Amino acid sequence: MRDAYVLGAGQSSFGSFPEETYLSLFDDAFDAALDSVDGEFDPGAIDEAYLGTLGVGGRQIGLSGPAVTEHLGLHGVPTTRVENACAASGFAFRQAVTAVKSGVVDVALAGGYEVMTDASSDHTRWWLGVSGETEWERTSGTTFAGVYAQMASAHMDEYGTTAEDLSRVAVKNHGNGAKNPKAHLGFECSLEDAVSAPSVADPLNLYHCCPTTDGASAVLVASEEVAREASDAPVRVAGAGAASGRVGLFQRESLTSIPASVSAGEAAYEQAGIGPDDLDFAEVHDCFAIAELLAYEDLGFCERGEAGRLLREGVTDPDGELPTNTSGGLKSKGHPIGATGTGQIVEAFKQLRGEAYVQVDDPQYGLTHNVGGSGGGVTVHVLERGESA
Amino acid sequence: MRDAYVLGAGQSSFGSFPEETYLSLFDDAFDAALDSVDGEFDPGAIDEAYLGTLGVGGRQIGLSGPAVTEHLGLHGVPTTRVENACAASGFAFRQAVTAVKSGVVDVALAGGYEVMTDASSDHTRWWLGVSGETEWERTSGTTFAGVYAQMASAHMDEYGTTAEDLSRVAVKNHGNGAKNPKAHLGFECSLEDAVSAPSVADPLNLYHCCPTTDGASAVLVASEEVAREASDAPVRVAGAGAASGRVGLFQRESLTSIPASVSAGEAAYEQAGIGPDDLDFAEVHDCFAIAELLAYEDLGFCERGEAGRLLREGVTDPDGELPTNTSGGLKSKGHPIGATGTGQIVEAFKQLRGEAYVQVDDPQYGLTHNVGGSGGGVTVHVLERGESA
Repeated sequence: MRDAYVLGAGQSSFGSFPEETYLSLFDDAFDAALDSVDGEFDPGAIDEAYLGTLGVGGRQIGLSGPAVTEHLGLHGVPTTRVENACAASGFAFRQAVTAVKSGVVDVALAGGYEVMTDASSDHTRWWLGVSGETEWERTSGTTFAGVYAQMASAHMDEYGTTAEDLSRVAVKNHGNGAKNPKAHLGFECSLEDAVSAPSVADPLNLYHCCPTTDGASAVLVASEEVAREASDAPVRVAGAGAASGRVGLFQRESLTSIPASVSAGEAAYEQAGIGPDDLDFAEVHDCFAIAELLAYEDLGFCERGEAGRLLREGVTDPDGELPTNTSGGLKSKGHPIGATGTGQIVEAFKQLRGEAYVQVDDPQYGLTHNVGGSGGGVTVHVLERGESA
Repeated sequence: MRDAYVLGAGQSSFGSFPEETYLSLFDDAFDAALDSVDGEFDPGAIDEAYLGTLGVGGRQIGLSGPAVTEHLGLHGVPTTRVENACAASGFAFRQAVTAVKSGVVDVALAGGYEVMTDASSDHTRWWLGVSGETEWERTSGTTFAGVYAQMASAHMDEYGTTAEDLSRVAVKNHGNGAKNPKAHLGFECSLEDAVSAPSVADPLNLYHCCPTTDGASAVLVASEEVAREASDAPVRVAGAGAASGRVGLFQRESLTSIPASVSAGEAAYEQAGIGPDDLDFAEVHDCFAIAELLAYEDLGFCERGEAGRLLREGVTDPDGELPTNTSGGLKSKGHPIGATGTGQIVEAFKQLRGEAYVQVDDPQYGLTHNVGGSGGGVTVHVLERGESA
């Protein structure tokens, strides 16, 4: 089985863009991905595409994947729309990697897009509701914030995690996002701001929840041969792990861990031949502040119950041992559902090329962690800095 | 690159099942797929799953793929929901084949499901509308039947195709479906019935349109090693082609051909090292009668404009040179959107094992052709009879 490489990766601005469509946003992301390739690359070399979106809204509903590639001028390129809720493009990236590994294609485009702010707020609430378990939990009135609020309550109860711990996620990620010109909420916030924000679903307040965002992201995945031709030091996909889990919270044994994150992380580490200690940075799925704490524990950044301590000690700050969400994360950069997974790859690619807005010192390995719903599907990827051939 | 094999394939009954859910329907399909394996196979060997659904309705919306595999007891197995409108599971199958070829997995589950009849008729009309181009064509009032009606009108105008030619698709496919106990509309119809049915979207009448169907289908795709262990003569996936095309009819140069069918067919033939003359049977996408005629021409069964003649001469009848839609096709077997692509693989698998309800004599090669929307995405697969090792 051959290796897969990231040849280029880019994103549109993330934010609220009433003048844009999923097509124009993806145009921006695709252009940014092409621009990021350091050598010559002809988009005509793209053999297949996998595009993620949750995809409800006033525009193209069925077949939006092919609509995007046809709009880009990639006529005829087989295109698959992937939907795994908030992990849609994490799974799209996984499939692009698999396709390149198979030898069926030499270059695959992975990406995602979402237009969320054109919908009425009622529609958006419904939309977010569908990321949870919709047969029982949604119909009994549980919102998506409510699902994560239950996880936060359980973590506080079990480990003594505090509202301040949760708020530190916002402070850190907004601090990073303030330096990212493509972030949706590119401003800093103080711990006081974050602790005292209005409640959304207790114990989660406004600063513990990511925004509703429009945006797109695109990644070019290629064989080593193609990658080395277009780039001096292409980024290697060292590990690709994924797992499913019970979609409904009520179907799980514990509320303080996402089993699919654990399994996906283990698979990615094993494939990469590394452990969490070898990571130089991570982009984790912080749709709600508690999700970032769970990620630390599920991915082995620390022991169970220690995530609050990691934040308090600044371990995941930009100058800490394991800088996490240097892009601003979902919290500050934004969370355009389908664009988030490959959006994380964009940040990892930039870090490993020394081009990030909040640059980590000389990183070799980075991890991305993309969660669908509250853990129904998770992808974890380990990317490795390119070495000149 | 290694080969991929179909180890087993099965479907639920197709029909209107108010008592069933997408989960219970998929249970039936999965059980049927397991039962179809002629040796021992442990479902615990399934490494990954790709499940297709258009997926709007009252039940699980986001993440329905993982919900299905978790329900089956395949805990943790990475599962991706694929949506390419009516070609959702054709693309899911393609991805399962790619994953096995890559060596990333040894066994992948491909399948699809749709519950369509629980929705109000208004809802269903909306739902079918989303398979077309939704930004311009749908909002200007074009129904999905209306899209195909335009293609039928153009074909009649260009080639002199008649309403009787269209009706022959119904007569043939209902004749086959009447022998298929899992068909939705398992009754015969006469040419007179088919010609004189009430109009839906002129020139298409009721017998020129497939029904709205509930159902599920499942296919086990495996490496040669696994396949040969569990089966004396597993079916080989000899060719896997796919292509995208303009989603909107108004964006295309011709209404009498689906370019993505042409490209996907050429790719599948080339990979299989055969041409249309080598086929012993085919399952083509007859969502509307005209679609079957277009398929004949786009896939090279005949020259342009000759599809009506093929039907008149009985070439695609069960005792003809190239029996087509022996399962009953979408017209009679039914068209549960997401289940259709892998449903076609079920029929091809049965044919190549000599187990079909309308069995073709000693077939070696069969083709499946699955169209998303009116041609926004198409997969074509060539399956080859297994040879004992």
